[in-house]
Amino acid sequence: MAEIKATIITIGDELLIGQTVDTNAVWIGQELNRIGVWVNRRVTITDEADAILNTLSVESENADIILITGGLGPTDDDITKTTLCQYFESEMILNKAVLKHVEERVKQSGSTLLQRNKNQAMVPTNCRVLFNERGTAPGLWFEKEDTVYVAMPGIPYEMKGLMMQRVIPEISERFSLPAILHRTQLVSGIPESVLAKQLEGFEQSLPAHIHLAYLPINGFLKLRLTAKGQIVQRIAHELDQYGMALENKVRDFLVAKKDISLQELLGEKLRKQNLRVATAESCTGGYIGHLITSVSGSSDYFEGAAVTYNNRLKQRWLNVPEKILMVHGAVSEEVVTAMLQGVLGYLNTDVGIAVSGIMGPGGGSEEKPVGTVWMAAGAIGNIRTRKLQLRYNRLKNIELTANYALLLLLEYLKDIDK
Amino acid sequence: MAEIKATIITIGDELLIGQTVDTNAVWIGQELNRIGVWVNRRVTITDEADAILNTLSVESENADIILITGGLGPTDDDITKTTLCQYFESEMILNKAVLKHVEERVKQSGSTLLQRNKNQAMVPTNCRVLFNERGTAPGLWFEKEDTVYVAMPGIPYEMKGLMMQRVIPEISERFSLPAILHRTQLVSGIPESVLAKQLEGFEQSLPAHIHLAYLPINGFLKLRLTAKGQIVQRIAHELDQYGMALENKVRDFLVAKKDISLQELLGEKLRKQNLRVATAESCTGGYIGHLITSVSGSSDYFEGAAVTYNNRLKQRWLNVPEKILMVHGAVSEEVVTAMLQGVLGYLNTDVGIAVSGIMGPGGGSEEKPVGTVWMAAGAIGNIRTRKLQLRYNRLKNIELTANYALLLLLEYLKDIDK
Repeated sequence: MAEIKATIITIGDELLIGQTVDTNAVWIGQELNRIGVWVNRRVTITDEADAILNTLSVESENADIILITGGLGPTDDDITKTTLCQYFESEMILNKAVLKHVEERVKQSGSTLLQRNKNQAMVPTNCRVLFNERGTAPGLWFEKEDTVYVAMPGIPYEMKGLMMQRVIPEISERFSLPAILHRTQLVSGIPESVLAKQLEGFEQSLPAHIHLAYLPINGFLKLRLTAKGQIVQRIAHELDQYGMALENKVRDFLVAKKDISLQELLGEKLRKQNLRVATAESCTGGYIGHLITSVSGSSDYFEGAAVTYNNRLKQRWLNVPEKILMVHGAVSEEVVTAMLQGVLGYLNTDVGIAVSGIMGPGGGSEEKPVGTVWMAAGAIGNIRTRKLQLRYNRLKNIELTANYALLLLLEYLKDIDK
Repeated sequence: MAEIKATIITIGDELLIGQTVDTNAVWIGQELNRIGVWVNRRVTITDEADAILNTLSVESENADIILITGGLGPTDDDITKTTLCQYFESEMILNKAVLKHVEERVKQSGSTLLQRNKNQAMVPTNCRVLFNERGTAPGLWFEKEDTVYVAMPGIPYEMKGLMMQRVIPEISERFSLPAILHRTQLVSGIPESVLAKQLEGFEQSLPAHIHLAYLPINGFLKLRLTAKGQIVQRIAHELDQYGMALENKVRDFLVAKKDISLQELLGEKLRKQNLRVATAESCTGGYIGHLITSVSGSSDYFEGAAVTYNNRLKQRWLNVPEKILMVHGAVSEEVVTAMLQGVLGYLNTDVGIAVSGIMGPGGGSEEKPVGTVWMAAGAIGNIRTRKLQLRYNRLKNIELTANYALLLLLEYLKDIDK
């Protein structure tokens, strides 16, 4: 079975001049990879007709699938649709279903229907229209000389909707793809290079069609076993075997046996153990609360967060004694312990997290440089603490702190569940 | 003066399968744009010799400058250097300065010098070596038929060092470059298509070397004017004129006159007006606090956030009367108003934001479907409220709610500053 190759073409000057990060191409790459399509090339071009025409012509020589995003909107610089119409020597006609949808959306938004809105319902005659329920610009599916071309809007939310509902299922049906299965395990507390050294023998024992990948995430590591083959039952069985062997090797560092975010995992554990959680956040400014509540249904176990960005609030809201703040400073084991006790006591919540640190670039000192973080997690009478020394930029430091804090609470929950 | 066009080639499977975000290409795009080089294409390819050779050959037809990152390291899958040597029909020789540098760095790191380290000092004879003081792999500068090719390591820190110290200065010297300038304005409260209709005449009045682009972000829109020309003073003057004209046309919807995030803009305004801010968050779970504190120095004006995820906390922390909660429900104008009054009163803070809503997918009712949000912003005695009806997924609903809440407070600050 021949490998199915894809090219991703993203269109837009904002990508070329670095005003926007091309997250669409990243996401599409992941999703195609998941179904066994190999992304061979990724090309970003300016929104000019010649650039689009030339690129389509060059890329069609090597790709079975060409996915295009951007330039389908209602403004004058959106020329992807008319250029595709030209490339496929087609004509534009009005699609009534799309027009009705556009009219409804414009009406809902309280605006007046303009000609440029109506134009969104004009589509080339020789394409299949992929209905876009999340927006006004439909996706367009063309086929020519065994190559599939799909144009989608550049707005990530709309593109993702179209990909999941239409493009991925139809590609899976249209092409004979190998079965690709993954088994993912989350580990933390061991450096990637040390683990890689320990797993050398295991990696060498893997057959050629099974591959182990290391994916470092903020504060932890995903180990992903990927198997490719013709018969899904066979590779599933093999993956179970090798997955179990891997699990035994990383047992001491294992956080989860599946591909799940830390906040989803925390939600599962809290539900199972019937516990409620609260946070007391200084340096993360509410980001841990955001992670926890980004999981649907989190109101079942999340009580609330006290974001105390200055010492006065730490005293008033969380009863952190002024003396501890004076003697140890806001970024200290003593203060995060008191913050955690404060929020748990005040909210009458079972378990919690407290963090305090210096995220940078300002605010560091010789004794406590930028990146110094103290965190506490657990319950009244059973609190564990950890110190971090981070060295990244502000946003990355915040994200790492939040993940390490979730990991610390997960460790606590694992221990009391034994 | 002809336009100088660049192609950026990034090499690596981790980019194609979406395991790594291509931040190098973003950064290089920004820096080239700054000196007047137009990034025309960006191509990401797999680390195979054929892919590299074919891409170099295709891209050289249109580009004056080709910047390549990745594949210069010491491991077996690093083949960029030998492939370039083949492309330029050259041979490898040892560069003694690089060897000395490699030896010193390996010694410093406490490792033993391996043959694969020494190989990093081997370079094609017909290139100019760009010394990399931040790492062991040097940059390589080739010229062929008026096209410049520069290969750099993929590690962002090393690439950036080489770009700033060598590549940018040498490109500026080697080519006669036009000036490229941008003016960005942020607007909100008007749909893209309606604004585009209103700006049709303005767009048509623009000379060929000035271009208007629409970039929709969560809850608002960036309008970017870009001008290209020979004489920087002249196009700066033109951009000032057209920028002013645009500003007048969008005055009612104008949020900012420069390219800035809403949270940075809020920080600037609060500083200028000498005000402190706090938030009371239900459905956003701390995300607004996170946005505000993602700006360095925000402790100067951010007091804290009360994340009250259930009604009991809204009563206890924020003094929201139980009766209001009973009669109007947690997602109501009355409750967000009381939440805002509560947090401002308790924290003695000048201005604030309060939000309560149903982010989905669960929790909706016929009267208050998923996506219903109430928000309040302002100060005690001068509170404005807004209702949203969102229709996205949970995370996008949270992000939009946060941005609209920041916009509501920005509106308030604009009005009281009049």
